[in-house]
Amino acid sequence: MEQKSSKSLQKMSGFHREHKGLISLMPLQTGGILTEAAKEALVEFGDGYSVCDFCQGVLCNIANPPIRNFVQEVLPPFLGCEVATITHGAREAKFMVMHSLAKPGDAILVDGNRHYTTFVAAERVGLNIIEVPHSGHPKFRVDVNEYAALIKQHAPKLILLTYPDGNYGNLPDARRLGEIAQEYNVPYILNGAYAVGRMPISMEEIGADFIVGSGHKSMAAAGPVGVLGMKKKWEQIVLRKSGRHSNKDIELLGCTVRGVPLMTLMASFPYVKERVDHWDEQVSKAQCFSAELEKLGFIQLGEKPHRHDLLHFDAPALYEISRRVRERGYFVYKELKERGIWGPQPGLARSFKLSTFAADRQQLGFVVDSFKAILNKYS
Amino acid sequence: MEQKSSKSLQKMSGFHREHKGLISLMPLQTGGILTEAAKEALVEFGDGYSVCDFCQGVLCNIANPPIRNFVQEVLPPFLGCEVATITHGAREAKFMVMHSLAKPGDAILVDGNRHYTTFVAAERVGLNIIEVPHSGHPKFRVDVNEYAALIKQHAPKLILLTYPDGNYGNLPDARRLGEIAQEYNVPYILNGAYAVGRMPISMEEIGADFIVGSGHKSMAAAGPVGVLGMKKKWEQIVLRKSGRHSNKDIELLGCTVRGVPLMTLMASFPYVKERVDHWDEQVSKAQCFSAELEKLGFIQLGEKPHRHDLLHFDAPALYEISRRVRERGYFVYKELKERGIWGPQPGLARSFKLSTFAADRQQLGFVVDSFKAILNKYS
Repeated sequence: MEQKSSKSLQKMSGFHREHKGLISLMPLQTGGILTEAAKEALVEFGDGYSVCDFCQGVLCNIANPPIRNFVQEVLPPFLGCEVATITHGAREAKFMVMHSLAKPGDAILVDGNRHYTTFVAAERVGLNIIEVPHSGHPKFRVDVNEYAALIKQHAPKLILLTYPDGNYGNLPDARRLGEIAQEYNVPYILNGAYAVGRMPISMEEIGADFIVGSGHKSMAAAGPVGVLGMKKKWEQIVLRKSGRHSNKDIELLGCTVRGVPLMTLMASFPYVKERVDHWDEQVSKAQCFSAELEKLGFIQLGEKPHRHDLLHFDAPALYEISRRVRERGYFVYKELKERGIWGPQPGLARSFKLSTFAADRQQLGFVVDSFKAILNKYS
Repeated sequence: MEQKSSKSLQKMSGFHREHKGLISLMPLQTGGILTEAAKEALVEFGDGYSVCDFCQGVLCNIANPPIRNFVQEVLPPFLGCEVATITHGAREAKFMVMHSLAKPGDAILVDGNRHYTTFVAAERVGLNIIEVPHSGHPKFRVDVNEYAALIKQHAPKLILLTYPDGNYGNLPDARRLGEIAQEYNVPYILNGAYAVGRMPISMEEIGADFIVGSGHKSMAAAGPVGVLGMKKKWEQIVLRKSGRHSNKDIELLGCTVRGVPLMTLMASFPYVKERVDHWDEQVSKAQCFSAELEKLGFIQLGEKPHRHDLLHFDAPALYEISRRVRERGYFVYKELKERGIWGPQPGLARSFKLSTFAADRQQLGFVVDSFKAILNKYS
């Protein structure tokens, strides 16, 4: 069919990304920037259902493109799990595990730094959500030892730990929680949306039952796509098949990411697999950057020394400026954008998150200098 | 971060689409071929979470890119509904409606031609699935009047009709079922995965409570993405918010298609909106093509005269050949591919589905000639 009426995107308003090409410190985005191979996959597999050319009924069994190999051979050793599958993202993976293992009214124990989607996924199942509190401002630490007493009190069907959390980039003692989970025989979900694809992580070493990862957050993939790893013992429960359509997974509704986001995840994977080996350098960059911003009077929240590229700062000096300028909190976004930097959420000045994952040391130096220049300009 | 280790896709085996550029008669794919605008959107919004640059917490409320306008202003009149939202696809839309309106053990009444995902979605909720039988070979018609007696017998919480079904392209009397639904006061889901984006359709005119569409199947979008329309009265139930995170939809887990498939759907929309106005020509093409193949001894299943581009043929002559050639049923796929045609699922010869939606009359003439040539070659 001809496309006489099809407008070019160039002519459609609002279809242009203002931040493309800027130095990105946006926490949601630094781990999801596509590789060149993923960009090629976008074009190659862009059309509708194009990954399904040779489908025999199950997405994860497709041999061409090599999805089956990716799911069965490549992902399990990478995640340190026995069985893996593909999901629409981390939240959908959490929901399917909760929906498979717990019933309405059952309790689930989660850390106080859990992502909002952990809460909403549990709500969707109808669970009784109990939170293990964090230590509050400024460290927001979760002591996993506190899970034990709450497990005894509430007999949860599941426990979940966010590793790291998306607000402060704290890395609680996931391995210790693995011991507690085994001691009390409670299935343990590790939400690694900001870990899998950024840093070395192994479900088995941690002693979790499930590991959840996000393609668009941390695996250089187009959104939305995620991964879920589990112990073999859970396969029959979480990946149970339809009674009528015997090759279809009930929790996946047959197939999940039947399209191009999965292809970008697979295309980027060789690069992602290699980049986790350079995690020490990422941590070093984050620590140097944090130290430089603290010299400017910013206060880094969360654990110190920091062990992740996700950083949260209180910035009292910027807040003071925002109270007297016309743009209010938006002046930070505007000033940074003028310098080619994209990071704090537009409107925020008092407290904001940044990620050093995608920027190199030279770029981070320029960001520090830019914050200095902004403070000087308004002082 | 540098991508020294990133392989080009060209060097990665299995990442090449063999069928790109062929005349496509593949039913899953003919309605999902991207427009030029959608291809540009792929590149512009490919990176991870890039649609969320200006997110204030809810995907469907994002103003830049203009998602809010698309969801609130553009989709409802197109679907003939009062409230619309975005989903991961048609199956996920069906699940969220069933999960919101029914409880485990409740009954749901569905047509005998329902897609397998209708069954699996209902199974995931734990529903008792009752099927309204079709008339069997060769018409496979569903008489919606049969819903009435089964509604009285089973008191279902929901009824669902597939319009058209994906196997035969039959269009049952959806409007009559709207009257029955109103008479018995049962919420009515119209699965329009092969209708919305191909042909004119209005939830309101049909009298349904919900309408489900598929971006990758029928709206020229990259997979997976879908749309869900509903009456205003269901908004508070299906789009209910989290008790703790008051702007987050529970059934959407906050946000669904947080990535590039949504942008391709939006970029293609002006073209899709216009193409449904040329549906008569699509039906005419399908009927001519079917008549030509029947002259070759193929038998078109489903309704006649046919009113949709989805066609299912029994091909006894091809089956006879497949029983005596080395490639068995794959000879059809191979012979067509050599002629630049991609359609029947590889391996099928006896009975297969085709769609005339993406091919023009000249191409369809070439397909007919190719089938003739294949029959001659092996006769």
